[in-house]
This record gives sequence, C-alpha cells and structure tokens, in this order.
Amino acid sequence: MNIPTSNKPRVVIIGGGFAGIALAKKLRNKSVQVVLLDKHNYHTFQPLLYQVATGGLEAGSIAYPIRKVIQEYPDFYFRLTSVKEIDTKEQKVISEIGDLHYDYLVIATGSKTNYFGNKEIERNSMSMKTIPQSLNIRSLILENFEQAVLLKDEAERNLLINFVLVGAGPTGVELAGALAEMKKAILQKDYPDLDISKMEINLIQSGDRVLNTMSEKSSVAAEKFLVDLGVKVWKNVRVTNYDGRTITTNTDLTFETATLIWTAGVQGAAIRGLDAKSLVEKVERIRVNEFNQVKGYDNIFAIGDIASMETKEFPQGHPMMAQPAMQQGKLLGDNLVQLISGRIMTPFEYNDKGSMATIGRNLAVVDLPSYHFSGVFAWFVWMFVHLFSLIGFKNKAVVFTNWVYNYIRFDREGRLIVRPYKKRSFTTFTSDEI
Amino acid sequence: MNIPTSNKPRVVIIGGGFAGIALAKKLRNKSVQVVLLDKHNYHTFQPLLYQVATGGLEAGSIAYPIRKVIQEYPDFYFRLTSVKEIDTKEQKVISEIGDLHYDYLVIATGSKTNYFGNKEIERNSMSMKTIPQSLNIRSLILENFEQAVLLKDEAERNLLINFVLVGAGPTGVELAGALAEMKKAILQKDYPDLDISKMEINLIQSGDRVLNTMSEKSSVAAEKFLVDLGVKVWKNVRVTNYDGRTITTNTDLTFETATLIWTAGVQGAAIRGLDAKSLVEKVERIRVNEFNQVKGYDNIFAIGDIASMETKEFPQGHPMMAQPAMQQGKLLGDNLVQLISGRIMTPFEYNDKGSMATIGRNLAVVDLPSYHFSGVFAWFVWMFVHLFSLIGFKNKAVVFTNWVYNYIRFDREGRLIVRPYKKRSFTTFTSDEI
Repeated sequence: MNIPTSNKPRVVIIGGGFAGIALAKKLRNKSVQVVLLDKHNYHTFQPLLYQVATGGLEAGSIAYPIRKVIQEYPDFYFRLTSVKEIDTKEQKVISEIGDLHYDYLVIATGSKTNYFGNKEIERNSMSMKTIPQSLNIRSLILENFEQAVLLKDEAERNLLINFVLVGAGPTGVELAGALAEMKKAILQKDYPDLDISKMEINLIQSGDRVLNTMSEKSSVAAEKFLVDLGVKVWKNVRVTNYDGRTITTNTDLTFETATLIWTAGVQGAAIRGLDAKSLVEKVERIRVNEFNQVKGYDNIFAIGDIASMETKEFPQGHPMMAQPAMQQGKLLGDNLVQLISGRIMTPFEYNDKGSMATIGRNLAVVDLPSYHFSGVFAWFVWMFVHLFSLIGFKNKAVVFTNWVYNYIRFDREGRLIVRPYKKRSFTTFTSDEI
Repeated sequence: MNIPTSNKPRVVIIGGGFAGIALAKKLRNKSVQVVLLDKHNYHTFQPLLYQVATGGLEAGSIAYPIRKVIQEYPDFYFRLTSVKEIDTKEQKVISEIGDLHYDYLVIATGSKTNYFGNKEIERNSMSMKTIPQSLNIRSLILENFEQAVLLKDEAERNLLINFVLVGAGPTGVELAGALAEMKKAILQKDYPDLDISKMEINLIQSGDRVLNTMSEKSSVAAEKFLVDLGVKVWKNVRVTNYDGRTITTNTDLTFETATLIWTAGVQGAAIRGLDAKSLVEKVERIRVNEFNQVKGYDNIFAIGDIASMETKEFPQGHPMMAQPAMQQGKLLGDNLVQLISGRIMTPFEYNDKGSMATIGRNLAVVDLPSYHFSGVFAWFVWMFVHLFSLIGFKNKAVVFTNWVYNYIRFDREGRLIVRPYKKRSFTTFTSDEI
C-alpha cells in the first residue's frame, strides 16, 4: 500500500463512518501512525440519506471528503480500498490493493442491510445504506413515474406508483414521510396526466408499533403523522417474499408493486479472519469488552455499529446509531494512547442523548432521556441537531439553503435521473399509437 | 407515448437544452399542444459542467427538472426518451418509447463531441458534454490520484497525474484553469505523500491561439493566465492518436498520460430521417433558413447548436453557444404562432451580447462587441452573468453559497468518487510489501 515505515506504532482503522472519523480526529498529533481505509473516499452522513433518495438534498451535501478531514494530520494516511480479510496471526489486513501490517487494528466497518437470508428479496428490492444506493432509489422512483405516464393499463400503472417500504425504524418512517410529501407537493404537479391519488405508500412493520426503539408516545405520534400524510401503516405483518412484482406476507395480505424498499434490518458488516467466537451470530456484530477490545485479542478493537458491547442496560449491545459510534470512537482514541504507554484504559459508558425522527414538514418526534415531545418544536430541534452534526461549514450552509427553499416553496428540486437505475423490466412496451 | 389527442396543432420539440427550453417557455398558453422530448429529465446548464468535473459544484446545482419548467403549462407534455429517427413523410418521430405524430417538429438536439472520425481517440478519451460525463471525469481524476499514491514507480505515477486536454476553446481553457487551481489549493494538501509538483496540465491546441473564437486580446490574456497558473499551453500541435497511454501529434511531440480529455470539437447531434441535402457535411448541422426552417420542409425547424443558418456575418452558421440558441428558441416561439395563424414570420437576427471565459480565481476574459477586458472585474462579470443565467432561485442560491465558500476557503469540497469510473487499467498491481 506504499505506506512509509514509522518508528511509531501503526494503527489501522477500517471504515470512515461516524466511529472511524471520531477516532481519527482523536489520534491527531498522538505518537502513532494512522492508516484509515475506506471503500469510499468520503464520509457519509447516513441520517440524511433518505433526503438524497427523495430529491431534497444533493449527494455532495451529506458527504465529506475523508482526505479533507485528515489533511493536516502528521503521519496520517488514507487509502481507498475494500478490506477482504484480516490475518490476525501475521497482524495484517488483506485488501484489494495489497496487504498492510498493523500494530493496532480498529474495525469500524459499520453495518449493512440484513435480508435475514432471503435471497429473492435481496435480489428484487432496494436498500439505502450508501449514497449510490440512495441515488438509485431516487432514479427508480422517477423512472417509475416516467414509465407510468406511458401506460394505458391501470393495473400496470399502479404497480409502478405503489411504493412499499418494509421496516418502520427511523429510515423507513422518514422515507415514507418524505415520499408522502413528494406525492402531495411535487408529483401531483409534475405528472398532471397521471392520477396521482392512485399512488400508494405502504409501510410494513413486523412488530406492533413504528419506531420500536423509541418511546411508546413517540411511536403513537409518529404513526398518526404518517397516517395523516396518507401513508398506509401495516403492523404485525411480516414480509415473506417478493418476486419483483408481488409481496407475500405471513398474513393474507399481498402487495402488488414494482418497488420494495427494504429497511427492515441491519447487520454488522463483518470481515473474515476473526475467531468465530468473537462474532455474534445472525447479527454479525463483533463481541467487544468495555474497552471495545475484541474478545480474544489484545490489539484488535471494534467500534460503532459493528461492535456489540453487551452490558446490563444493553444486553444485545448498543443501538446501531451515530451517537454510540461517535462516543466509542472518541474514547478509543484516548484509550489507545493509554494502552500504548502502558496505562490503564477507561471503560465505555454510553451517554444517551436521546433519539429523534422526522416524518415531514413540521412533524417530528423527540425522545430525551426523561422527556418526549412531538410536532413543530420537535421538528425544529431535529433540523438544527442534524444541521449542526454535518461535518463542514459548506455542507451546513448548502443544506440550510436547501431546507429553507424546500420549506418555503414546498419543493424538492433534486428530482434528477442522473444515472438511470436499470431495473429488470416487468412490462414490455409495444410501439404506441401515434 | 400516450399523449391525448387535441384539436390544436401538435408541436414536438426534441431536446430540452437552451434552445428547446426557450421555445417551450414561449409556447405557454399559445393555441398549440406541445410535447417536449429529452433523453434526460433535466435541463443542463452546460457552461458550468467543468465545475462539476472538478468538484467545485454538485451536479444538482447546474441541472433543473424539465417537468418543473412546464409544470403549469396547459396541454404541455414531457416524455423521457431518446429519438431514433424522423419519418418526415408520415410526420412522426420514432423513439425508444414509441412513435409520435407531429404537426410541427422542432429539432433542438444540440451538439455532441466531434472526434473527427478517430475511433481510437474516441474509445480512450473522456469528453464533457453531459452531467454523467462530467461526473466520470471527476471520478477519474480522483481515482488517478488514489491509484498514484500506491505506486513506487515514478514513470507510472506520472502517467496518472499528467492530464492532457485537447482543444483550447472555452471548455478546454476553463477546465485547464480549474485543474491548475485544484493542484495548487487541494491536491497538494490532500496527497501529502505524493509529489504534486510532478502533476502536469497540458493544453494542446491545433490553431495558433487559445479561445480562437474570441478577440486576440482575450486570447493573449487567457494564455498568460493559464501559463501563470502552471498550465503548459501547446499551440499549432494537432493530436493524431491516443492509445490510452501515449498521445502522438503531427509534430515530434508525444505525451505519456492515462487521461486525455477531448474538448477539441463539437458537431451537431443529428437525427436520421432528414433529406441528406439539409445536412452540412462533417459538422452534422442542419441547414436552416432565416426562420430556422429546415431547408426543404415547411413544418420542420431546427434551433440552437444543431442549426446552421448561413448568413453574411456567419457563413458557417452561428457559434454553437447558449446565446444564439436561446434567441432562436424565443423567436421561433413567436414565429410558430404566426405561421399557424397564416401570418408572416420574422427573420432571425443574432444579437451578439459578447462572450467570456474564466480561467480561475479573479481571472477571466470578456469580449463585448466593442470592448475587451480581463482580470478581476471580468471575473466578477463572468460570475454574475453565470449566476443569473441559472434557472431557478435555489440553484442560484446554492451555487452562490458554494462559490463564496470556495473563494474564501480556496477549496472545492465536491471531491467525491460517488460512482467510480471504470477505466481500462494499464498497470497491474502486485501485492505490496507490508
């Protein structure tokens, strides 16, 4: 990988998400050499991916070049690559662009979509964990409408403008709300020759409430907001299959749709090479102790979504969200310095700052540790927290400009099919009458 | 195409560029049915493509949804499709999504890159006429650097960080200047482990001056600006071939590079089906009379880059730029109404408002019909003219925010490889030492 040798110990970080970047920032000017690896050359602000998917924001507004973060850090290196495997015996990372020795390894690979083993759903549905995936969803939504205006057959047309989202966590809820707002504010005007009232947004949830990681109050409020916006919320329904046209469930319900967006689950983006015992089955997270040290290894750590630190309060590990990831990354920065200089490390304690979700214009729910609120004020809180969490002044300014514009004009101008998404076509067009 | 029949005559416009959009706006509320066809669902502000390619602006900032332009126009239709052929006898357009009858046809397909028949250059070089192409260039530039940091061999490394632009018209000049600024302000900092002084920007021109459609004064000023920024300007050199690694020329000069960006020529994006006599050979433009009527047809028109209206002042047609396109589109809007109601049409007269090009921060050249100036003030003029020419308030605001930021911070944050550009690899990597 063409990294110079150094007399300082080398820390290799895999992943430039919330956890990896928080750690990198902490290691600036510490007596370590740092190599940060990521398969993208930018950090993604994942909580706003749904706005990219629905044309509210441009991709560049929620991405930040990783090289810019570490630009002035001495003895810091970035390499654009995908890690295939770890060789813990030889202490090296095996990647597409070669191998790399580590003294300390930090796995911060985050999470990926979990289809729970259903290959057919995986093949036929869309997921939204990365910027290219969000842009694919954006293109597909718009392509569906462009295709629908061409069709005379109502059933075929409805197939294209029926959107089914599976999983009512924050991603599913926020995307459903954004789609409902697109329907009302934009699609109606953009496609006057289409009966937009036929457009459906179905949100399917296997559990008995939406946003089930939040308070009951927030679940109730969020569901009401969704229903008011015209989203059909289906609870206690588990999707069993999807062939690209028909969704079957564990009930009598079926859905006919060309578009299933799967936000029903995530799992750790695990890497081969670790001892099987350090992996939590099914969720593919890596078991770590209170110092984020991977069980069974002294010099390998895992932070963020990929790490499962089982505590009394969180017997299955912390929630897979930005906050625990950032906090773990920060603490590990200090702890690595401690470890290297032979001092004692500080155990991680999660400081729960609360959680929130937005459903649409003026509609959000906020759970603080001891207080819940929803509505317009919650929406303002949501907006400012997200605005200030973005890295970089320019991203803040551009997102703010966009939001003010979108709010005042009831508009989203990003409805551009820049790279068409080629979905297997289920209808064949015959040359139309002229 | 599922367009309802109308008792008004149907005008079909092919292309939503400067000419097509100007025409569409004029036809609002006129007693015609209008169908606008384009292969993208957005209008592209082409003069700023080079800023997308170099990370200064996001794609969405220079694109505008076509459906939003015509949103409230009665009896107006947009269809996303690529037109394959025209059947002038049957009066129909043959497209990917079916055929469409026209009463009046307006061809506004613009221009495409002209490789003057050299297939090998076409295969191995990049061009920059569309947003996806600009994003490909952006990805490739950054990928070159990411690849270069991995290489120990200096010759191979230099191959990757040597950029050759062929053609010193406005596109080539502006792109060369932007690359030179990237080198100075960003790449130096982003790639501290690379000797960025080895990065070359070569601008090759077959004629004896850059910007040869502008005044001599402007050519001289622009060349000085380029040279001061570190661009190597080669005049009177004609590129004869490029195999993906070596550029040969009509002189002894050769260039070793992984990246050739071809901005040396454009030609009309002609459509099959017109009488051969109406086409100007080599440049593939369509011969039109002073009403933009295609020679030999009463109800077919061509406007913008594709149209060649041979006048005393412009014996080879007007320059292929935004201004003539917009003016022709506007006038044709009036003329079509005249023609349909049996009244006399007004001949086109080009109102030359001047032309300009920017080379970099505080550096631009402006030619007004009777006055030339360059430098800081020219740059301000360039900036405000371009800012106000963008469609849409939001695009103006976002571009302005970006430019202010880029200016103050000497930065371009759009250096994101969102969709990697897969270029045929000319080096093979061996697993590096660790």
